[in-house]
Amino acid sequence: MKIVKTIQEVREQVRTWRTEGLTVGFVPTMGYLHEGHQSLILRADGENDRVVVSIFINPLQFGEKEDIESYPVDLERDREICASAGADLIFHPDSQEMYGRDFCSFVDMDGLTETLCGKSRPGHFRGVCTVVMKLFNIVKPDRAYFGQKDAQQIAVIQRMVRDLNLDLQIVPCETVREADGLAKSSRNVRLNPEERKASNILHEALLLAEKSLDAGVRASDEIERAIRDTIQGEKLARLDYAEIVDLQTLKPVEVIRAPALVAAAVYIGNTRLIDNFIYRN
Amino acid sequence: MKIVKTIQEVREQVRTWRTEGLTVGFVPTMGYLHEGHQSLILRADGENDRVVVSIFINPLQFGEKEDIESYPVDLERDREICASAGADLIFHPDSQEMYGRDFCSFVDMDGLTETLCGKSRPGHFRGVCTVVMKLFNIVKPDRAYFGQKDAQQIAVIQRMVRDLNLDLQIVPCETVREADGLAKSSRNVRLNPEERKASNILHEALLLAEKSLDAGVRASDEIERAIRDTIQGEKLARLDYAEIVDLQTLKPVEVIRAPALVAAAVYIGNTRLIDNFIYRN
Repeated sequence: MKIVKTIQEVREQVRTWRTEGLTVGFVPTMGYLHEGHQSLILRADGENDRVVVSIFINPLQFGEKEDIESYPVDLERDREICASAGADLIFHPDSQEMYGRDFCSFVDMDGLTETLCGKSRPGHFRGVCTVVMKLFNIVKPDRAYFGQKDAQQIAVIQRMVRDLNLDLQIVPCETVREADGLAKSSRNVRLNPEERKASNILHEALLLAEKSLDAGVRASDEIERAIRDTIQGEKLARLDYAEIVDLQTLKPVEVIRAPALVAAAVYIGNTRLIDNFIYRN
Repeated sequence: MKIVKTIQEVREQVRTWRTEGLTVGFVPTMGYLHEGHQSLILRADGENDRVVVSIFINPLQFGEKEDIESYPVDLERDREICASAGADLIFHPDSQEMYGRDFCSFVDMDGLTETLCGKSRPGHFRGVCTVVMKLFNIVKPDRAYFGQKDAQQIAVIQRMVRDLNLDLQIVPCETVREADGLAKSSRNVRLNPEERKASNILHEALLLAEKSLDAGVRASDEIERAIRDTIQGEKLARLDYAEIVDLQTLKPVEVIRAPALVAAAVYIGNTRLIDNFIYRN
């Protein structure tokens, strides 16, 4: 496994693979990898001849008051996880390599980015779309792998791929969870033991929503209220949003029809956590 | 030479060429081709194994009050020009093929798009960047050819290619002119005989500016004023802008240093015409 820092090196490596007729899978990450990322790399390794992992904490997707400065880093561990999961190349550029002097081009999206996480993180999806477009153009993969925990990110990137005619396949992968159900996230490390315990409320609330759906409830306001009430029962939790939306358009639905996305975000202390599930029938 | 209407057909043809190891040149147009386009196709033919020409009047780059409805069309003549100049494939999609239901992704640019033509055509360069990004992703050319008449368009597209890491080369090509110096444009056909005669004032004013530069004048306001005065001397002409800017950043310069772009736009009746030259030493 090679680690490279320049776009030029990635291009040369991928070009060589292409002339050998090999397929390329791609897993974009911000590093501090956990079992969720590991599962993406393993899947990419199973479905492609070669796997590229990018590690880049993208300044463009963090708001001014957000946590980029304290975003966790452990490159040595990342390298081990990548190697053992089957990655062939790590692309680890610095900001200057990605955003040179006078950088001023962006990918923007109407609609899909103004709801859910986009509401509390203005500019976030402009940053995500722009960096993902750049990475896709650098790596030119056949398939790119994203975790379902970031459901809105997947919807937004799939829309970008379709609208701007990118010639690759987006592969959504199931959320990997801790034993108690908390979705794996690089940000979980910030929770103190008390907060860690409280954070489980997010998954619990979504499990309850799933049960209501199984029991035949179809009014989204009823289920959203139940999620809100459950989360408000936990003193350390502060709800950001609980919403049920169409899986493709991310528009709120009144009456739930499959496929729908049931998504919520909470603050536990200063840490913002998100989770969701897809209602499929 | 083939003519196709779907993205799928373009992809399949280009993929076949690629497996044969052939290079691909690309000339994006809005149709109603003239000798300017012809020269782009001829150059693309000389520098690549295969040439794709797209013909698509892109609604996204026209303002609400602009001239998309009356934009001239002559597909039969376009086909002849393409064939004789060496094109191998014409991509002629309809709007639905390019902008499907729920289309909502765009390429935006700060700075470069707010000056010159961007000022009088808000949204124009969003439309240009978005359609060019789409076409580049569909055709995946090695080289794309653009006429220097649209100097700002070239600067904007080169910036997009650099910022978003598109893996192709932009080839700017010299403006082709009528016998009296008027830059070739699909819009020239709209000029009545009197307007056609008056339209020459644009090229004349720029020639005078070039002479001043040759004579050692370096104050941009002095040259801009001379262009304005010349154009105002023509009763049928109404100046949109006359500006001297840095060739890369398109920022206005006070003291002219090479390379600088000297650009002007005028209305002759209802027809808007643009022209420019690059000061190189």
